[in-house]
Amino acid sequence: MLDILKHRTLSKQYKDTLLKDVIPFWEQNSVDFENGGYYTCLDNTGNVFEKDKFMWLQGRQAWMFSMLYNKVETNEKWLEIAKNGIDFIVKNGMDAEGNFYFSTTEEGEALVQPYNIFSDCFAAMAFSQYAIASGDESIKKLAVDTYRSILKKKDNSKGIYEKSTGARPLKSFALPMILSNLVLELEDILPKEEVEKTIDFSIHEVMEVFLDKESGIIYEFVKPDGSLEDSFNGRLLNPGHGIEAMWFMIDIGIRRNDQSLIQKATDTILKILEYSWDSEFGGILYFMDAKGYPTQQLEWDQKLWWVHLETLVALAKAYEHTQREELLPWYQKVHDYSWSHFSDPENGEWYGYLNRQGEVLLDLKGGKWKGCFHVPRAMYQCWKSFENIESKL
Amino acid sequence: MLDILKHRTLSKQYKDTLLKDVIPFWEQNSVDFENGGYYTCLDNTGNVFEKDKFMWLQGRQAWMFSMLYNKVETNEKWLEIAKNGIDFIVKNGMDAEGNFYFSTTEEGEALVQPYNIFSDCFAAMAFSQYAIASGDESIKKLAVDTYRSILKKKDNSKGIYEKSTGARPLKSFALPMILSNLVLELEDILPKEEVEKTIDFSIHEVMEVFLDKESGIIYEFVKPDGSLEDSFNGRLLNPGHGIEAMWFMIDIGIRRNDQSLIQKATDTILKILEYSWDSEFGGILYFMDAKGYPTQQLEWDQKLWWVHLETLVALAKAYEHTQREELLPWYQKVHDYSWSHFSDPENGEWYGYLNRQGEVLLDLKGGKWKGCFHVPRAMYQCWKSFENIESKL
Repeated sequence: MLDILKHRTLSKQYKDTLLKDVIPFWEQNSVDFENGGYYTCLDNTGNVFEKDKFMWLQGRQAWMFSMLYNKVETNEKWLEIAKNGIDFIVKNGMDAEGNFYFSTTEEGEALVQPYNIFSDCFAAMAFSQYAIASGDESIKKLAVDTYRSILKKKDNSKGIYEKSTGARPLKSFALPMILSNLVLELEDILPKEEVEKTIDFSIHEVMEVFLDKESGIIYEFVKPDGSLEDSFNGRLLNPGHGIEAMWFMIDIGIRRNDQSLIQKATDTILKILEYSWDSEFGGILYFMDAKGYPTQQLEWDQKLWWVHLETLVALAKAYEHTQREELLPWYQKVHDYSWSHFSDPENGEWYGYLNRQGEVLLDLKGGKWKGCFHVPRAMYQCWKSFENIESKL
Repeated sequence: MLDILKHRTLSKQYKDTLLKDVIPFWEQNSVDFENGGYYTCLDNTGNVFEKDKFMWLQGRQAWMFSMLYNKVETNEKWLEIAKNGIDFIVKNGMDAEGNFYFSTTEEGEALVQPYNIFSDCFAAMAFSQYAIASGDESIKKLAVDTYRSILKKKDNSKGIYEKSTGARPLKSFALPMILSNLVLELEDILPKEEVEKTIDFSIHEVMEVFLDKESGIIYEFVKPDGSLEDSFNGRLLNPGHGIEAMWFMIDIGIRRNDQSLIQKATDTILKILEYSWDSEFGGILYFMDAKGYPTQQLEWDQKLWWVHLETLVALAKAYEHTQREELLPWYQKVHDYSWSHFSDPENGEWYGYLNRQGEVLLDLKGGKWKGCFHVPRAMYQCWKSFENIESKL
């Protein structure tokens, strides 16, 4: 067993970082009580360098503070911060058909049209957690409506902004992946049979369609019949995505008491890690080509915060529920890399973007795509997993 | 004066690389005589690793071989290669309204809709040069029609694929920049007053609107009234773009015998170079934020082939027409960096993408955005400039 496990300090490390470092950073620097919503473009000490508001991150932060209120402590300040985001999204985030804009100005004027269904997904998550926290029935209804709208749009998620002709359609892993998490988030407010149906769909798509039987790893895009396409998109691997989806599968496995799903998800975490670990500089690569060809993505070799944090969660959960010893050296490796490269105890929060060599590439703690989400969610998940693991040592 | 100038070998270096290295690489590896058009995704030795065809690069390569036929040698093989691209574009590249798709399959089935007006721009350039080379009147008409269609669409160039709401409009430097080059390309087939009008428009937009008076550098986006916006896009600098546009301005200055335009373009080249040269690792940065904030672009610190080649052209042309001595140390610096990092005499052509440290990031000679264009065009331009410079030594 690992020394860091034996010392029983991991749960405390994650809990303290969550509650004494990460959450205070966002409480102090991001909340815009004047216009509503949250600033997310924060430099390394927390100064706002760009005021536009991105709906992905508005939803994610409102979800985060609602979740902390529901699961950690009924802290009224957290509920107030959650409400500040929810009100902004309700007032400014939606078009007349209930689609969610991609971004707005600081004041809430729409800037970028609803071309991206993930804005809707994170809004639905936020509405659901906030409805539980606040008991607000109108927000609960909005959560259900948004969820149904997502299901209706899911096969043409970009709508009129879709640039593909349809001549060579591919389906995307991101959607069943997010649905597998979203449906558990909305479990309490949806009819049981609807929940089970979406879970069945997600497990099938993630574990039977996008998980390639031959290689044991997850592809980002497959043909409608599930076969692989030899093209830039068809060869694309996003290791962090695949690993994150595996902890969603473990959550479903726990809920359904399905040990074989948990074992298969664990196998997949290990396969993807072996495939994507950068043996030269350490860390997990952002994008790869399944055939080893050059990727379209110029940022392929960078090391991203969320990839590493979701991997820590996946490894912790997998170990918590399987006790497979082979997970531990990987946990130690990813732990050492992540805590020594991304965290910034001096200024708070974690850096988001490192170059291949592990040096800070963008000197920021939040931006257009990085908000109050992956860091605190992973801190919470690892805290709880290690609490459980440590209690059984 | 520089030693490399005194030796009178630069024109030969560029000419030989063009005719004995770069053009043979594309002749041998890219032409698809079976389906028409060109493969552009070529690995470091020239093997095709992806067969989709990208309209930007179809137009650019057809233009390149037509231009070589018109300006270097009436080599029938070059005309045949140009025709192979032109026929493919005419047959497969346009929708019913004469807009150009972004990409097609190898066989020519449209894959990505015409969301990008630069496909149209490079097609128009190709049609014009090919019409001159072949005397084909139908292609000449197509060049004029395409040019007029571009002018008609230029204020809403993404059409129905525009995702901005219009709440905070910005105009883009790329369009007046490309028009300033395109109009000279089409000079022989357009009415004189139309040419002069577009040149006037381009000079005004590039040198009075996007060139910031205070800093002396070019911004990528400005507000409709020409003022700067404090936002991700409003702060964005693309040094290679600015420098490339300056040699388009020098070409216009030569044509109009406008020494003050040539001097101002030269000043701007020097300003942008001072601003964007990476003093730590050498080379010119890809993107910068005018206020020094983190960019949206994760690839901001990479070193790209076209940035460096267009800078060599700009410096050579500026020296050819001003003889300003301060250009020479910069030429030497960019020359040394570019030839030692991007060129690959063993396998032919130049690499496209280096990391900040100057190491090869993508092991390819062509891709989705890199085709038979910037390398050979720069080789031709530098050959001709240095021939002229050397003749006067």
